[in-house]
Amino acid sequence: MDTICAIATATGGAIGIIRVSGNESIEIVNKIFSKDISNAPTHTIYHGFIVTHQSEMETIDEVILSIFLAPHSYTGENSVEISCHGSKYILNKVLESLVCNGCRIANPGEFTQRAFLNGKIDLSQAEAVADLIASNNRATHQIALSQLRGNFSSELSLLRNQLLRITSLLELELDFSDHEELEFADRKELLSLAQKIGTRISELTKSFEQGQYIKHGIPVVLVGKTNVGKSSLLNRLLREDRAIVTDIHGTTRDTIEDIIEIKGVTFRFIDTAGIRQTKDIVEQIGIERTHKAIDKAHIVVWLIDAVPTPAEVKEIMDLCSGKSLIIVQNKIDISEPIESTTFLTQPTNLIRISAKYDEDTKTLEDAIYSAANIKQINDNDVIVTNARHYDALLRAGKSIVSVIDGLQKNLSGDLIAEDLRKTIENLSEITGDQITSDEVLTNIFKHFCVGK
Amino acid sequence: MDTICAIATATGGAIGIIRVSGNESIEIVNKIFSKDISNAPTHTIYHGFIVTHQSEMETIDEVILSIFLAPHSYTGENSVEISCHGSKYILNKVLESLVCNGCRIANPGEFTQRAFLNGKIDLSQAEAVADLIASNNRATHQIALSQLRGNFSSELSLLRNQLLRITSLLELELDFSDHEELEFADRKELLSLAQKIGTRISELTKSFEQGQYIKHGIPVVLVGKTNVGKSSLLNRLLREDRAIVTDIHGTTRDTIEDIIEIKGVTFRFIDTAGIRQTKDIVEQIGIERTHKAIDKAHIVVWLIDAVPTPAEVKEIMDLCSGKSLIIVQNKIDISEPIESTTFLTQPTNLIRISAKYDEDTKTLEDAIYSAANIKQINDNDVIVTNARHYDALLRAGKSIVSVIDGLQKNLSGDLIAEDLRKTIENLSEITGDQITSDEVLTNIFKHFCVGK
Repeated sequence: MDTICAIATATGGAIGIIRVSGNESIEIVNKIFSKDISNAPTHTIYHGFIVTHQSEMETIDEVILSIFLAPHSYTGENSVEISCHGSKYILNKVLESLVCNGCRIANPGEFTQRAFLNGKIDLSQAEAVADLIASNNRATHQIALSQLRGNFSSELSLLRNQLLRITSLLELELDFSDHEELEFADRKELLSLAQKIGTRISELTKSFEQGQYIKHGIPVVLVGKTNVGKSSLLNRLLREDRAIVTDIHGTTRDTIEDIIEIKGVTFRFIDTAGIRQTKDIVEQIGIERTHKAIDKAHIVVWLIDAVPTPAEVKEIMDLCSGKSLIIVQNKIDISEPIESTTFLTQPTNLIRISAKYDEDTKTLEDAIYSAANIKQINDNDVIVTNARHYDALLRAGKSIVSVIDGLQKNLSGDLIAEDLRKTIENLSEITGDQITSDEVLTNIFKHFCVGK
Repeated sequence: MDTICAIATATGGAIGIIRVSGNESIEIVNKIFSKDISNAPTHTIYHGFIVTHQSEMETIDEVILSIFLAPHSYTGENSVEISCHGSKYILNKVLESLVCNGCRIANPGEFTQRAFLNGKIDLSQAEAVADLIASNNRATHQIALSQLRGNFSSELSLLRNQLLRITSLLELELDFSDHEELEFADRKELLSLAQKIGTRISELTKSFEQGQYIKHGIPVVLVGKTNVGKSSLLNRLLREDRAIVTDIHGTTRDTIEDIIEIKGVTFRFIDTAGIRQTKDIVEQIGIERTHKAIDKAHIVVWLIDAVPTPAEVKEIMDLCSGKSLIIVQNKIDISEPIESTTFLTQPTNLIRISAKYDEDTKTLEDAIYSAANIKQINDNDVIVTNARHYDALLRAGKSIVSVIDGLQKNLSGDLIAEDLRKTIENLSEITGDQITSDEVLTNIFKHFCVGK
């Protein structure tokens, strides 16, 4: 393959790294380096100068080269990493010199794409690289690293092997189709195995919601009448963790202020701009938008300071069907405790707080965390976070349901085999075993950052 | 020295580098790396995992280690560079693990400070590292690289040797002080040598202005009456190069928009906010501020569309004394050409333009470039860009003047020797040969970025 190059570090640091990969890597870098590296062994380091000979001889930078020879590199090809002083001017000049000597500027993710094409990693591992770089807390980091280390791939490989086992047993069945008593015994075993596979695929599919929550934060909405104290409660919740959040997320202030972390889990407050600015979500953003916000939420925090009217109770209950609802009585320092039974048919846990007391904020945080019903993630847990994987799993899930259905209806082996083949294909898409189209690959890797 | 660590790359890239340097580098990294690197030779590379054992065993990242053993490293100490996936979360976790195992977070510039303390580079070279990282065009880059490669240091070393030669000749003179005829001959030679040194120190001191211009841009101010077309001319000048400028400077838009590059030289338009927003610098920012802007400028572009009044001519001429003045007649497409002799006592070059024509903008750019009177910089040219160096050179200049004065007045050798000593000391400050105070060093290195 041709030789590609790219700046692999962000602008503005002390060090900038340029990656070069491809058949001619060593030869091209050798042309602009002050020492001869043509016989450099793999995994060795050289100190010297980058010198261009374009219009006139010009020294660009004092650098450190790291040499990786095929197949012992990230891409599996001959590769060189050039560690420069981190000036954008210098990095661009070095890149220019590389291009003048035969390199091509890499597309986003092209190094990882080559690692995939050269069989160093499968497609789900390649995608995990991008997720790992984007990881901003313990949970996203663990999921990405687990995927990069091949835990998801192993799981898929296991499922594929089980599906292949069913396929071969069905073939066996066809071979012995005149022995009816044999067929019956096999079918039961096959059905049980297919159901197990179906359950696992369904679990993986379901983990996508958790994956989305981990990636983007669990959506929470704070509702309640005017003057019930939503604004101060929100400010309190957000202020507490702001320092940590700023550090971890590194996003803009606007976004930061609507995100809190509780015990390492990210919660994202929906549509709080109105609350924070005007103290009244209803007046500011309108009833319709409040409904939409509740619709998007996983957890609804309903703030009250008096017994709500039956109309209000009905509205909230209708909107919150299927959500985790936390009822919070505010201003407990100046009012009587309200019992949930006075306005709800069944007793519901009700938290009493005063935004004045720090412990009360802590109590609410604990309630939000519990409402999220987070499963603790372990090092090797597989949680699907990628929409492409989710889509493939959904299709695999449909196919395996057809397999189960066919087995239950005692359909002929060749009919079932077709659905088995589809299931295997769908799962194989995830690791890329079945992907040969350039277009699909380009689409996957175009979301990567350049230099990876 | 204790072992320090820091993230050496900016946040947000594909790769993030963590530097570790100090006696325990190898031992500390070995504790958190999946392979044994205790016997790794210098300049070798290892692939593996960073694993922490804090509360529980946790894999942090798949990394590449580069090993540098003393004295063959940047700092001159044992060093390790850890190339991680560029996630802030991961980089902070690796840093945390290093600190838990005995590293200390490095101060800004501490790696370079150690390189200086361990005799790998002198102080002016150390400072060049920071300049090189900050370099954003060919000129700043060349000056910094030349300084890093020791051209300034060699020049200073040459001057010091010449000063030492005078010192020893003066001592010789004192030894033979009863042979008057010998003394006379030596003094002439000494004077000539001291004058040469004085001239060179003075040249270096003067280069500081050019250095400042190169670093921060040559200050230009655009003046003229209301409605003469300053705003559109400025927009035209700035728009032309905006794409290039954005790319090279990488600063915020506000700053970008007042900077243009002509033939690789940066020009900075002073106080143009008023012009750009209201089309009238005088009304918006006031006469006083216009005067201040002209005061700071190296080049004044005076835009007219009719013969200026004698009062106006007098005001501009008074303000622009010592500046490069470019008179520009605008709206040439709709008005008669004005001759400079109609309002100035001596013929002055006057550029006629219409902001409508692209070539006219080009003509003005050429005029601005000529007015800057830029000396072309070559690879080994020494240009002083650092205020600390400038200050030391100013003092060295004063001392050498005293030496010359003493020689001319035929003062006794021991009196002159005192000024010679001072000159040598002042020059030695620049390379750091005379600096032993921690405070001075801390002050120099605190402006570096972390990780360098």
